Amino acid sequence: MTEISKLGEFGLINHLTSDIKPKNKETICGIGDDCAVLNYQNRQLLVTTDMLMEGVHFDLTYMPLKHLGYKSAMVNFSDIFAMGGMPKQITISMAISKRFSVEDMEDFYAGLQLACDKWGVDIIGGDTTSSLTGMAISITAIGEASDTPILRKGAQPTNLICVSGDLGAAYMGLQLLEREKAVYYQQLKDNPNDKSDFQPEFAGKEYIIERQLKPEARGDIIAKLNATGIHPTAMIDISDGLSSELLHICTQSHCGCRIYEKELPIDYQTAVMAEELGMNVTTFALNGGEDYELLFTVPIGDKEKIESIDGIQMIGYITEEKYGCQLITRDNNEFEIKAQGWNPLKETK
Amino acid sequence: MTEISKLGEFGLINHLTSDIKPKNKETICGIGDDCAVLNYQNRQLLVTTDMLMEGVHFDLTYMPLKHLGYKSAMVNFSDIFAMGGMPKQITISMAISKRFSVEDMEDFYAGLQLACDKWGVDIIGGDTTSSLTGMAISITAIGEASDTPILRKGAQPTNLICVSGDLGAAYMGLQLLEREKAVYYQQLKDNPNDKSDFQPEFAGKEYIIERQLKPEARGDIIAKLNATGIHPTAMIDISDGLSSELLHICTQSHCGCRIYEKELPIDYQTAVMAEELGMNVTTFALNGGEDYELLFTVPIGDKEKIESIDGIQMIGYITEEKYGCQLITRDNNEFEIKAQGWNPLKETK
Repeated sequence: MTEISKLGEFGLINHLTSDIKPKNKETICGIGDDCAVLNYQNRQLLVTTDMLMEGVHFDLTYMPLKHLGYKSAMVNFSDIFAMGGMPKQITISMAISKRFSVEDMEDFYAGLQLACDKWGVDIIGGDTTSSLTGMAISITAIGEASDTPILRKGAQPTNLICVSGDLGAAYMGLQLLEREKAVYYQQLKDNPNDKSDFQPEFAGKEYIIERQLKPEARGDIIAKLNATGIHPTAMIDISDGLSSELLHICTQSHCGCRIYEKELPIDYQTAVMAEELGMNVTTFALNGGEDYELLFTVPIGDKEKIESIDGIQMIGYITEEKYGCQLITRDNNEFEIKAQGWNPLKETK
Repeated sequence: MTEISKLGEFGLINHLTSDIKPKNKETICGIGDDCAVLNYQNRQLLVTTDMLMEGVHFDLTYMPLKHLGYKSAMVNFSDIFAMGGMPKQITISMAISKRFSVEDMEDFYAGLQLACDKWGVDIIGGDTTSSLTGMAISITAIGEASDTPILRKGAQPTNLICVSGDLGAAYMGLQLLEREKAVYYQQLKDNPNDKSDFQPEFAGKEYIIERQLKPEARGDIIAKLNATGIHPTAMIDISDGLSSELLHICTQSHCGCRIYEKELPIDYQTAVMAEELGMNVTTFALNGGEDYELLFTVPIGDKEKIESIDGIQMIGYITEEKYGCQLITRDNNEFEIKAQGWNPLKETK
């Protein structure tokens, strides 16, 4: 392992970025000066940013750095897709403590690059500095807007509410990883001299683990919507849980909604894991967070087009504001939807 | 004091940003959706980002949060100015621990807004989350490029090397603040029951304190250069010390340089403080860091124009690469310039 102090800030940055060459015609200059230079030639651009803190957003006990790099990029791409745009550039800032090596940073950058290659995104700059404690990551993504960026505020009564993929899996993956971590620490505590490798029990649960560690932003859904000629009236990505995001759309659109428990898309592994943990899977489909799926509304006339696309589920419809935001349960009860999603600044105890 | 947990993430963001309205015509949508939407109408844009970590980049013992907000914005504007551009938008991400109150965040945002108002910059988005330990701040600034962004690589032999303002003051301010902090802690230790207010000795040293706590990015110099019709061949802002930045220009321009110790612009208070500390002021003018002045090169034919502008000092000239980078001392000795600037990832012991 190579200590980062051997290279210093500029040496480390050179080492990690010397092979990075801009691919997009919008990227006039990338890494290497005070700023990157971009030219979007009269098209609108999108800007989003996310900060990830060790111990709050990720746990390096079970999150490999390559996955962390991948996920850090994807969560930002997800915001660009949620406006109907395509990501083109990112800046990456990191603060790292002395316990990280040059090889660790190579792993992180490999994951970051993999995500960027998947969507043709250029890494155009950033900042690398030291932290006295945990790792901090901040990514800003810039993308090309579609002719009309899809905002949160455009939903109309009678619009269908659609969700891509399935919900709650990433959160169930997190629960599983936390459970196995606890088992591992207990085993270490009980038998401090047992040097045998710990084998976590992940068999048959690979999907929910992958949803937590290596989420995919749904640019493919944007491409399919464009190909089918569907223009969502409102869209948001699901990072804090379906309930929270649905309330954002309803609040900003001055609408209400009715969604149906039986229509919520839930993967088999998610349901099994919830069962194992004695938890209600619907709660986690609504509030789990980190799904990075797209939630959007379309005019009711687009119903058949939506049905023609694989991987999109209609879960309900938009109502007038006065009817509030309601979940219709399997046994036909109505519950008001509340945001119980992940909220790092809210006291939970 | 209001606990942040009472508001939660979205409540805090709403509270801090509800009065923020975009002022620039390039800002189509600001805060409130998955992304901001910008339109630069066929003009090039500049992107830069900086991360500031508590305990590494700032010490809240003596750095008021309002100043920290101001400085966080200014250090990013400085990078935009260093390309000859004008800042237009920023995103602000922060991670904060439970010891901060809503009022603390208001102070930080007040400073941030003050800096933005000074240069007509819109706050267009960000992320606010929790930290288990210290505060982390990440700002990305976007700006409008001039017709030809001024890169680091354009310096040519015989070009004059120019510096705005004066050097070493911010570092001397830091030394003074650190000294008074040590005195304060010693006093607390010696007399734990002495409740009298500690009065740091800052009289006659206000300038160096302000240079550390409230730096000004030199957009005024860009305006003056434009007004005088001067097009620098290369430019960089001085954040890590003159030596380090000069070497960036020379390396990227494949040039050498000769600068003169007697021409280095040093304020009286900086010199006095260095004297008090028994330190060589030239060392700090070369390597102090956080000056946020502009270092640039101009064709020798612009000499008279440069002399007509207040607050710009010519410190030497660019040479062919084979002559290396040399400092000519007051007693006419030559020393090779080395980057000894602040480098947070380099082992200093």
